[in-house]
Amino acid sequence: MEKLTLNAVGKLIPERINNEAVIPFKGVGKYKPTGRKYAPKISSNTDFPLDGNKQVSDLKTALTKAGLKDGMTISSHHHFRNGDLIMNQVFDIAKEMGIKDLRWFPSASFPCHAHLIPYLEDGTINRIEGSMNGALGKFTSEGKMKGTAILRSHGGRYTAIQDGEVKIDIAIIVAGTADNFGNANGVNGASASGLLGFALGDSQYADKVIVLTDNMVEFPCIPWQIQGNYVDYTVKVDKVGEPEKIISGTTKITKSPDRLLLAEMTAKFCDQADIIKDGFSFQTGAGGTSLAVSKYFGDIMRERGIKARFARGGSNEYLVNMLQEGLIEYILDGQTFDLEGVRSMRENSNHVWTSPFTSYNYHGKGNFAGKVDVVILGATEVDVNFNANVVTHSDGLLLHGIGGWQNCLFSKTVILPIPLFRNRNPVILDEVTTIVGPGELIDVIITERGIAINPLRKDLIEKLKDSDLPIKTIQELKEEAEKICGVPEKPEFTDNIIAAIKWVDGTIIDVVRQLKK
Amino acid sequence: MEKLTLNAVGKLIPERINNEAVIPFKGVGKYKPTGRKYAPKISSNTDFPLDGNKQVSDLKTALTKAGLKDGMTISSHHHFRNGDLIMNQVFDIAKEMGIKDLRWFPSASFPCHAHLIPYLEDGTINRIEGSMNGALGKFTSEGKMKGTAILRSHGGRYTAIQDGEVKIDIAIIVAGTADNFGNANGVNGASASGLLGFALGDSQYADKVIVLTDNMVEFPCIPWQIQGNYVDYTVKVDKVGEPEKIISGTTKITKSPDRLLLAEMTAKFCDQADIIKDGFSFQTGAGGTSLAVSKYFGDIMRERGIKARFARGGSNEYLVNMLQEGLIEYILDGQTFDLEGVRSMRENSNHVWTSPFTSYNYHGKGNFAGKVDVVILGATEVDVNFNANVVTHSDGLLLHGIGGWQNCLFSKTVILPIPLFRNRNPVILDEVTTIVGPGELIDVIITERGIAINPLRKDLIEKLKDSDLPIKTIQELKEEAEKICGVPEKPEFTDNIIAAIKWVDGTIIDVVRQLKK
Repeated sequence: MEKLTLNAVGKLIPERINNEAVIPFKGVGKYKPTGRKYAPKISSNTDFPLDGNKQVSDLKTALTKAGLKDGMTISSHHHFRNGDLIMNQVFDIAKEMGIKDLRWFPSASFPCHAHLIPYLEDGTINRIEGSMNGALGKFTSEGKMKGTAILRSHGGRYTAIQDGEVKIDIAIIVAGTADNFGNANGVNGASASGLLGFALGDSQYADKVIVLTDNMVEFPCIPWQIQGNYVDYTVKVDKVGEPEKIISGTTKITKSPDRLLLAEMTAKFCDQADIIKDGFSFQTGAGGTSLAVSKYFGDIMRERGIKARFARGGSNEYLVNMLQEGLIEYILDGQTFDLEGVRSMRENSNHVWTSPFTSYNYHGKGNFAGKVDVVILGATEVDVNFNANVVTHSDGLLLHGIGGWQNCLFSKTVILPIPLFRNRNPVILDEVTTIVGPGELIDVIITERGIAINPLRKDLIEKLKDSDLPIKTIQELKEEAEKICGVPEKPEFTDNIIAAIKWVDGTIIDVVRQLKK
Repeated sequence: MEKLTLNAVGKLIPERINNEAVIPFKGVGKYKPTGRKYAPKISSNTDFPLDGNKQVSDLKTALTKAGLKDGMTISSHHHFRNGDLIMNQVFDIAKEMGIKDLRWFPSASFPCHAHLIPYLEDGTINRIEGSMNGALGKFTSEGKMKGTAILRSHGGRYTAIQDGEVKIDIAIIVAGTADNFGNANGVNGASASGLLGFALGDSQYADKVIVLTDNMVEFPCIPWQIQGNYVDYTVKVDKVGEPEKIISGTTKITKSPDRLLLAEMTAKFCDQADIIKDGFSFQTGAGGTSLAVSKYFGDIMRERGIKARFARGGSNEYLVNMLQEGLIEYILDGQTFDLEGVRSMRENSNHVWTSPFTSYNYHGKGNFAGKVDVVILGATEVDVNFNANVVTHSDGLLLHGIGGWQNCLFSKTVILPIPLFRNRNPVILDEVTTIVGPGELIDVIITERGIAINPLRKDLIEKLKDSDLPIKTIQELKEEAEKICGVPEKPEFTDNIIAAIKWVDGTIIDVVRQLKK
C-alpha cells in the first residue's frame, strides 16, 4: 500500500494521486510556491484568418481541429449550472470518435451531467477534477470512477491553471452572445446566464479554446467578458443552455421559523460586533437562510440610513433589489443565481462581473476576499476545533463541491449559521468527515441553540461579552446536540481514496475514501 | 565593424543591438515565433497585506520596496501624453539614489520628458525603448544616447512584453482613480485621462507594479481597467498628470483648402470603392485631415441613412458626436485625444476601452486590426514601392514614434492621404529614409494631385477604373512632385546606428543612423 503522510490538520495524505506527486497541507499561509506561472505557447496571427473570422461549422469540427485525442484535459465552466446543454455533447462526440482517458476539468458539474456516467464507466473519461453535485458525486463515492477526483475551490482552480498544475488542452466556453472572432459574454442573448468569469483562466492558459453560442453577433461583441484574442474556434449552435436552470439555493426567503431565527441571530451578532456600519461589505449567499440574513442587514441599514460599499455575489433578486434601493453601492458578482441577477448585471454598471482571478486567486498579489468585512457561509459539519466540511454528508457521501467557500474564509469575519442537527444528525462533531476549511479561519458558529466564537477571535469575544445572544463554547453546543440526538455513528470507509480536497494553495487538506457498502 | 545582414526590404541590419541578438525582418507573415510566453514569478497572497491595503507613503518608498537598482527596466505608459508629471520624478529619484544604467521602456515619450536629457547624458538612463516625440528623438538622432533606441508599435510593445523579449522590472502605472489594493482606471477623477490600456501588458508581466493616483477611493475602484491583483504597491500623490495636455493632432477640422481636398478625395475614394456601407468600420485618427475625413464619412452615412458598426479610436469630440448621433454603434478606443473622449468613455458603455493586446498583438490568436474595413493613416514619406515612413523626417531626424501605425496596416484597406510635398520636400521618393511599413500592406496613396493604388490591389483598381478621381501611378505622382520641387537631396548619416525599428513580429525592419553634422 502507498505511503501516507500526516498533514497539518492530522489527515493522512498519499504521496501521489493520479500518478502525480502531491503536497500535503502545511497550514494556512505556510506553503509558498516557487517557480513561474504556466507559459502558454506563443501564437502567431499568421495562423489565424486575416479577417478574424474563426467560425467553424459545428462542435465536432471544432474539437477535431483542436486536435482532440486520448488523455487530453477538457475544461468547462458552470455558469449554466444544471441547465448546461453542451458538455454532454462534447463527450458524446469524444465517445463517437473513440477517444479514451480524458480528464474533465469543469468548474463544477451538476445532476444534468449524470449522462456522462457510462463514459466514466467505459473509460472515455478517466476522471473529473471539479466540483460534483449529486449523481456524479455518489458514483465517485462508490469507488466507480477510474481516476481519483480532485476538488478545488473556485480560486484554487484558477491557481492550478495559472501555476501549470493543470494544463488544459481544450477549453469549452459556452456564451449567451459571441462574435465570430471569439469575443463573448454571458449577459446578452436569449441564453444569457450572467458572466463567464469561471472560464477566464481557461481562456488565458488553455492550448485551444472553443467558444460556442446560440447568439452570434457582428463584431464587436460587447462586453467581451472573454476576449477573442485567446480563442481558436467559434461555433454557432441552436441552444447553448437553459438559463432558467441557473437558480441556486431556494429563491425565496425561508419561512422556516428555525432558519429565520438563525438568520436573525446572525444579523444581530454582526450588529453587536460592530460589523454593520456605513461603508461595510458583506457576502451572504443564495440559500433561504442567507437571503434572510441579507434582508435583516437591509432592515438595519435602512433604519440607520447607512449603506454597504459592496456586497459580493452570487447575486439574486434580493441583492439586486438592495442595489437598486441604494443600500449597496456595488455588487461584485462571481455568479448570477437567478435571471434578475443576469438582467441587473447587463443593465447596471454598478453590478460588476468578477472572476476567480480577481476574487480568489491565492497565488496572486492578494485577492478580493480579504477586503470583505463579513461572509456568511454554510457547512455540512463543523468540529470542536472549528474545522468545517462542505463536500461530504454525515453519511460519508461526496455530494457537493467547494465553490468559493474556502476562498471566502480569508474575509475579515467568517460566520457559519447552521442548524445544530439535521435529520437527527448532530452537525457539530468531534471530527468532521472531511476537513475542507481549517478552524483557525472560521470565526463564529451560529446555531438556533447558541453561538460559539472561535477562541482565536478575542476581539469578538470581548465585543460580545455583555451580549443578550446565547454565547456558548463549541463544546457546549456539541454536547447539547448529542443530548438530543445521541452520539452519531460514523460512516464506514474502505482504504480506497476516491477524491482529494485541495486547499487554496494547491496542497491536499484531506482525502475522501470510498464508502463501505 | 559589426557584420550587417540584408533584411527582406533590403535594409542592412546588425546581428546584435544593445548586446542582444536581433532578427532581421523576413517579410510580412514570414517570421513565426517558437517557444512560450514570458512566465512571471508565481506570487503568494501571504506576501501581501491580509486586508489588501498596499498603499505606501510615497513614490520613493515604492521604488525602494520594489528593489530599484542598476540596470533595471522601468516601464511607463503615455495616457497623459505631454501632461505626464510622474516619470520625470521617477528618474529624479533614481538619480538621487545614484542608480545607473536604467532602460526606460515607455509606450511613448513626449517633449515634457526633455527633463531627462541630463540623465541620458550622465548614464542614469542607458537608453529609451519607446516612441520619442520631439527633443528626445533629436537628442538620439545626434548620437548622444548611450544605448540604442528601440522603437516598437503599440502592438509590438505588448508582444515584446508577452514574449519575454523585454522583461520589465518595475512598471509605473499612473491613474486618474485607484483603490489601495491597486485597482485603477483612467476614466474617473480630476486627472482622468481616459483608459490605461497601454499599461495592461506591463501590469500582467512586470516583476513589480506600482500604481499612482491623486484620487484614491475606497475599494472597489470601478471600473478596474488595471486589476489590483497584479499590483504590488499603491501611492497617493498630489497630482498625477495634466489631462488637458492629452490633446493630439489639431483639435479642429482643417481649414486648409489643400487638406480639405485630400479629405474629400479620401471619402470619395472610399465611397467609390464600396467601403462605406451599412455596418462598415473605420479608423481615421486625430489630425485635422483625419477629422475632415470622419466628417465626410458622416455626411455620406447621414445622407444614405446607414451607420458604421464601429470606429476605432483615438477618440475625440468629433468621433464622440458621431457615436451620440447614432452614426457609429461602438467606438473601440485605444487612446482618448481630448476630454470629450474621456467623458464619453466614462459615461457611454458603447465607447469601449481596448488595449494593445486586444487590438494589436501580433503574437496572439488574431487581433482587431483585421476586422477594420478601412484605416486612414499618415506618413512622413512614401516610396515608389508603397513602403512608408512615419518616424524620421526628410531631414533624417528621428522625431516621431510608430504608435499603432504598423498594427493598423493589417486592416482591410489602408489609405494614406498625404500632401505631395511639404516645405518643397517631395513626400513620394524612390526610397524612404526609414522603412516603417512594407509597401505590400499599403493600398492607396491619396495626394492633392492624384491617387495611386497599389498594383497588388487589383480589386480596387477594377472598382475605380471608371472613376472621376485622378487615379495615377505612384511613379507619376513622384515625377509630378519632382517637377515642382526638384529631386530632393538626401540627409547624410554616419555609420552609427542610433535606433532600430521593429516590425510587429519583433524582427528589425530598419535602423536609423546618426545624422552627420
